[in-house]
Amino acid sequence: MFKKILIANRGEIAMRVIRTCKEMGIKTVAVYSTVDAESLHVRFADEAVCIGPAPSSESYLKMANIIAAAEITNADAIHPGYGFLSENAKFSKICEEHEIKFIGASAEMIEKMGDKATAKATMKAAGVPTIPGSEGILDSYEETEKLADDMGYPVMLKATAGGGGKGMRAVWKKENLRKAWDSARQEAAAAFGNDGMYMEKLIEEPRHIEIQVVGDSNGRACHLSERDCSVQRRHQKLTEETPSPFMTDELREKMGEAAVKAAEYIKYEGAGTVEFLVDKHRNFYFMEMNTRIQVEHPITEQVVDYDLIREQILVAAGVPISGKNYFPQLHSIECRINAEDPYKDFRPSPGKITNLHIPGGHGVRVDTHVYSGYIIPPNYDSMIAKLITTAQTREEAINKMKRALDEFVVEGIKTTVPFHRQLMDHPDYVSGNYTTKFMEDFEMEEPED
Amino acid sequence: MFKKILIANRGEIAMRVIRTCKEMGIKTVAVYSTVDAESLHVRFADEAVCIGPAPSSESYLKMANIIAAAEITNADAIHPGYGFLSENAKFSKICEEHEIKFIGASAEMIEKMGDKATAKATMKAAGVPTIPGSEGILDSYEETEKLADDMGYPVMLKATAGGGGKGMRAVWKKENLRKAWDSARQEAAAAFGNDGMYMEKLIEEPRHIEIQVVGDSNGRACHLSERDCSVQRRHQKLTEETPSPFMTDELREKMGEAAVKAAEYIKYEGAGTVEFLVDKHRNFYFMEMNTRIQVEHPITEQVVDYDLIREQILVAAGVPISGKNYFPQLHSIECRINAEDPYKDFRPSPGKITNLHIPGGHGVRVDTHVYSGYIIPPNYDSMIAKLITTAQTREEAINKMKRALDEFVVEGIKTTVPFHRQLMDHPDYVSGNYTTKFMEDFEMEEPED
Repeated sequence: MFKKILIANRGEIAMRVIRTCKEMGIKTVAVYSTVDAESLHVRFADEAVCIGPAPSSESYLKMANIIAAAEITNADAIHPGYGFLSENAKFSKICEEHEIKFIGASAEMIEKMGDKATAKATMKAAGVPTIPGSEGILDSYEETEKLADDMGYPVMLKATAGGGGKGMRAVWKKENLRKAWDSARQEAAAAFGNDGMYMEKLIEEPRHIEIQVVGDSNGRACHLSERDCSVQRRHQKLTEETPSPFMTDELREKMGEAAVKAAEYIKYEGAGTVEFLVDKHRNFYFMEMNTRIQVEHPITEQVVDYDLIREQILVAAGVPISGKNYFPQLHSIECRINAEDPYKDFRPSPGKITNLHIPGGHGVRVDTHVYSGYIIPPNYDSMIAKLITTAQTREEAINKMKRALDEFVVEGIKTTVPFHRQLMDHPDYVSGNYTTKFMEDFEMEEPED
Repeated sequence: MFKKILIANRGEIAMRVIRTCKEMGIKTVAVYSTVDAESLHVRFADEAVCIGPAPSSESYLKMANIIAAAEITNADAIHPGYGFLSENAKFSKICEEHEIKFIGASAEMIEKMGDKATAKATMKAAGVPTIPGSEGILDSYEETEKLADDMGYPVMLKATAGGGGKGMRAVWKKENLRKAWDSARQEAAAAFGNDGMYMEKLIEEPRHIEIQVVGDSNGRACHLSERDCSVQRRHQKLTEETPSPFMTDELREKMGEAAVKAAEYIKYEGAGTVEFLVDKHRNFYFMEMNTRIQVEHPITEQVVDYDLIREQILVAAGVPISGKNYFPQLHSIECRINAEDPYKDFRPSPGKITNLHIPGGHGVRVDTHVYSGYIIPPNYDSMIAKLITTAQTREEAINKMKRALDEFVVEGIKTTVPFHRQLMDHPDYVSGNYTTKFMEDFEMEEPED
């Protein structure tokens, strides 16, 4: 087992990794930028090394500095957390070259899954469903019509040079295809000087449902069921839950099987997440694979009594997994508490936390790196805490979340607590009947006073 | 279901009850003494009523004030928490007379279980094992010898007027009985002017193991397995765990059956705890029944995914239980964090908390009513937080407790955090090989600096 792990990250995930290392009896090294000197991860690690000034490019992304910190402190492994260098193939390789174990995917794996086209082709070869569509640019209308017939309607035409919705057409019936094709091409030619088109199956009422997997060095993988991350704003997840209210036992079995197949096909080692889009008919399609721990991993831990960071470390140390899959025994919800003003278009709100009260009690978990008096620097992402509630049923987990949000006091800065509190009362959230489009129509109600 | 519950308590248990009420959509009324005006339970309840000055006799024990507060606020039930009026038969009866539901035992039940002799006789009649012994004062040596033969050795002779160990003799073999009898009587006569003796079976290497039960208004009861509370200092529990490291499946089945039998025999309604002494041969003997929620109830909640406060409220509202028993799926430990100086014989340490950091993350639950800036009044018991860790194994739960204790920062006052941190490393605690005598030999190691 590793003797000392360097955590190449900051914030709550640095704390998260330090906690598991301590529980496993492994020494920890924190790295920090100058603005993070007062961070909890610096305080709670066994050692801490300053790796540069605030811009991430000068510190948390500066590979040479991190490797130097690991060598100075004699760390035998590096945990990259999420973001920063966690999916950087070069960094994974450099670690390997320095004989420091990178607790994450190999360079080859990161490259394979990091490039969307390669990832999709690999999954297709593994027999995992991907979003049907044209292979590259469509040559003619006739080819387009034939392909649409094969895939079935609805379909989505997209300009290859497109962006901002220009040159994009949803087509629900065959009789509308010709008109859509002509107008989309004209629009694309006018907008981008390029009328090249491709086509994908249109995913109706899409939900973002991902499957957690763990693979070991023997090429064996297991899954830990799903997380529903459909509540997103500009592709940023805001809240996640497991089980998905849209899930059925049959669909979970099929998606879990597909995710395990994906992981085993590429001999995936470590904790990873296979993200799918699921349409209203419960067809599911591979979107991408994240070769790292996810922000929302705690909800899985809560419902299967499993420590995913521990598992990452064990697998990285060569310990084989049992191969058994895990199914949710409870219901768990995570709200990402961000230092943003939900009444002002989620504008970041860095600054000093003058007063803090964190909720507690039955079924409440909080992962955070902040404290009363902490100054949130403007340099990093705005998440300051993850509030997680767990209960026997979804209704109870929502009620627990409401009371925990009501107890959450953060003074001095704005947070997304009021957004989550309103979300928990939204009829479409309460019914579980939400898609990735949910936030497009969501509007904050102004506070009463 | 109740519309509004008044919580006739303070501190963490008032917060605990408010939380579940909120989750159930029930309004809450806090009561508080003048020194508790800044308490969190006052802030988080829907309404709050001041019921008098600091001495409990003038506020938290003042029945008339509490009933008046309930009537003013239109509360239809009162939750008494633990301590204070929770096992006060008169208060239970007064609530009933005012048509306010007392969420606890009936006056009759409290009386029956509150008097030790009656409780023991009742349990004997129910077929629950009690500590064998003489019925009252022994008439002669011959009777004593015969009874000791029947019960089996070792036995304990006790002066009926005794105290402080005077007139008490442990007898391990028959040949020593006569001498012990004579000397104990002489000692008792000299010390108390009364040589009346009684005798009980001596419990070897006793452990305090209690069984959580819930009974409903139909006379049905279930159990939720055990809690081991053997780590005690002057009969005050310091830390508790479930499962007990001393437990076997067979013993759990027998003790659970006995506890359910006890509860059903007396038609017990609500959450209750049957406390047993267990000897080194795994014989168990009824000690007493607590007709209220226990401080240490959260560890049971953690391992059976059950909200005991919710269950108390449901049962009080007449909802029947399923009758199913619950068995621990995980391992959970509670450390009572008291404002006491463990280096100075656990002397109380009230005052202002100038800085507070509460641990969090995977498997950590904290129930507390304190915050940074809170002033602990000297008038009440010294518990300021319950730190609970839960994991798949006992070893992991201990490791989690260690790292959580290391994260717990309380400045301005002394706490028992360092005691628990040393306890978690004590070989007898780590091995699970501890009895109620454990603390008699425990000595704090002085801190290094």
